[in-house]
Amino acid sequence: MAASSAERQAMSRALALALRGPRGVNPQVGAILLDADGTVLAEGWHRGAGTAHAEVDALSKLDAGAARGATAIVTLEPCNHTGRTGPCAQALIDAGVARVVYALDDPGALSGGGAERLRGAGVEVEAGVETEAAQALLESWFTVQRLGRPEITVKWAQSLDGRAAADDGSSQWITGPASRADVHRRRASADAIIVGTGTAIADDPALTARDGDTLFPTQPVPVVIGAREVPADAALRRHPREPLFYSGPDLHDIVADLRDRGMHSLFIEGGPTLASAFLAAGLADRVLAYVAPVLLGGSRVALNDIGVASITEARRLVVDEWVPLGDDLLAVARLADAPQAQTKGS
Amino acid sequence: MAASSAERQAMSRALALALRGPRGVNPQVGAILLDADGTVLAEGWHRGAGTAHAEVDALSKLDAGAARGATAIVTLEPCNHTGRTGPCAQALIDAGVARVVYALDDPGALSGGGAERLRGAGVEVEAGVETEAAQALLESWFTVQRLGRPEITVKWAQSLDGRAAADDGSSQWITGPASRADVHRRRASADAIIVGTGTAIADDPALTARDGDTLFPTQPVPVVIGAREVPADAALRRHPREPLFYSGPDLHDIVADLRDRGMHSLFIEGGPTLASAFLAAGLADRVLAYVAPVLLGGSRVALNDIGVASITEARRLVVDEWVPLGDDLLAVARLADAPQAQTKGS
Repeated sequence: MAASSAERQAMSRALALALRGPRGVNPQVGAILLDADGTVLAEGWHRGAGTAHAEVDALSKLDAGAARGATAIVTLEPCNHTGRTGPCAQALIDAGVARVVYALDDPGALSGGGAERLRGAGVEVEAGVETEAAQALLESWFTVQRLGRPEITVKWAQSLDGRAAADDGSSQWITGPASRADVHRRRASADAIIVGTGTAIADDPALTARDGDTLFPTQPVPVVIGAREVPADAALRRHPREPLFYSGPDLHDIVADLRDRGMHSLFIEGGPTLASAFLAAGLADRVLAYVAPVLLGGSRVALNDIGVASITEARRLVVDEWVPLGDDLLAVARLADAPQAQTKGS
Repeated sequence: MAASSAERQAMSRALALALRGPRGVNPQVGAILLDADGTVLAEGWHRGAGTAHAEVDALSKLDAGAARGATAIVTLEPCNHTGRTGPCAQALIDAGVARVVYALDDPGALSGGGAERLRGAGVEVEAGVETEAAQALLESWFTVQRLGRPEITVKWAQSLDGRAAADDGSSQWITGPASRADVHRRRASADAIIVGTGTAIADDPALTARDGDTLFPTQPVPVVIGAREVPADAALRRHPREPLFYSGPDLHDIVADLRDRGMHSLFIEGGPTLASAFLAAGLADRVLAYVAPVLLGGSRVALNDIGVASITEARRLVVDEWVPLGDDLLAVARLADAPQAQTKGS
């Protein structure tokens, strides 16, 4: 039986409830229980790993037996696995829920299969309601599920001939104000900004996302990788988010830890050694190269060794967009050889 | 007295005659002698350095005294200096020409002033007829007069990160077929293609301008700079134009010699050392950088030392156009610090 108008309205409301929960290791999910007349019996949402799932949160607000014969509206397929909480599919069955309407299938190998369990217990199941909105809500979380790690963007600024600085190390400013403003806007949508200790010490960056002098409402966590000690008075220690420090050297371990901390998107900001190491390790899905119409020559390349020995190993890019920014040009690209790379918004 | 319709028509014809002469050290000039009724008495054009100027060529076709009272139509101001030939202004005065109509002033410090000499001798002078067409005809020659040398374009292909090859030297092909076809089209409009002996030996380029396998009707002269010997069976020795070899090392001397051979435009095709040397020597007006959406890293940079020590010395470019060529992007740019650089066609 297709979803009723009341069920569709409830799904929109459930998506709004989902947003109350945090972006993190677990998906943001909302749930609503309706009685046979379409009246709301209870609402719930997931508040992050270790807390009740949305369906269970909603059920917990009702007296025992009050959900018998009810319809559950959930933004994601009820899970089928026992982690820190029991399987939601079973909780719905146990509560006597008669019908479940959900937006998206759960892609998890462990958590998926809830719909099947529900049907097996005689519960009516309807999937695919408000799919697009639910997809948009969970896009970055799905990316993490698909990649097995956060999505990684490697960003750098360079002269047309690929230098990050002149031979004496001076680099302010290769790119213009429009490029720098663009970097800040894109930073604001990342969960973490990662730099090497070399950059942290030499440039003393604030690593905030700013519109002029004003901080954007969301701020990425500053992350520093390297063995050297970052000074106690470093600007990034005054960042609104607590900085994370990794001595390295295994980038896969660091990325896995950031995933476990619930991060969906990482922004690698250099310097050249760190950016190249991420590329060489295959830990790069997207590239943002801000190209200034300037020639520098010399030894200070924006990328150094990225593990390419021969032209057949060249890391080919799919440039989604060349964005003019003042006199500069931004290449927004994906690594063509990253089998699971995705186009944002496609 | 403004130019008559017959005079304007004669100027168009004179411009066509000018094209019969060669592009070279001297300007291409055409001249026509009209009688008082606007009837053509004689035509002339300049056939290159050491031969008669256009006005004298036209006069030479008439019996003595036949040009008395005539009007001379000339595409460039009659010269006022004695080189390998006498001043044309004086030749016109001596022939009794009553009126001179010309298109463009002669920019030469030595050769200019012809109009003044003519007026001083009582000849009626009208300048500025068909200026635009004459300007287009002589554009590259005027550029040489202004720069004191041929216009120099430095061209290279690079990965987005500024490499000309992978670490093992392999580079075929960084850029795609659309870029390579574009290079050939642009080569065809240059008077010379210049490479270093390293490139000539390592890549054995033909240095022809081709559309597929077909040679374009005009071919630049291949020029090789460097101390090493280019093999007897090198492809460029089979070029339709006789190659020129310079052992170097002074690029200014080489460019001056090419100017004296009548070349107006030089195309520097690398490798990286030669391209960088031209940039470092201030011998670059325009840049063509073909950028492929590929990352290579490593040591084989497209430009090496261009004489920039600090960011304040960065060689800023004015990019006239970013041209998409298949997946590649071509930067068509001028050196912003080249005080006499010009925009083609502006």
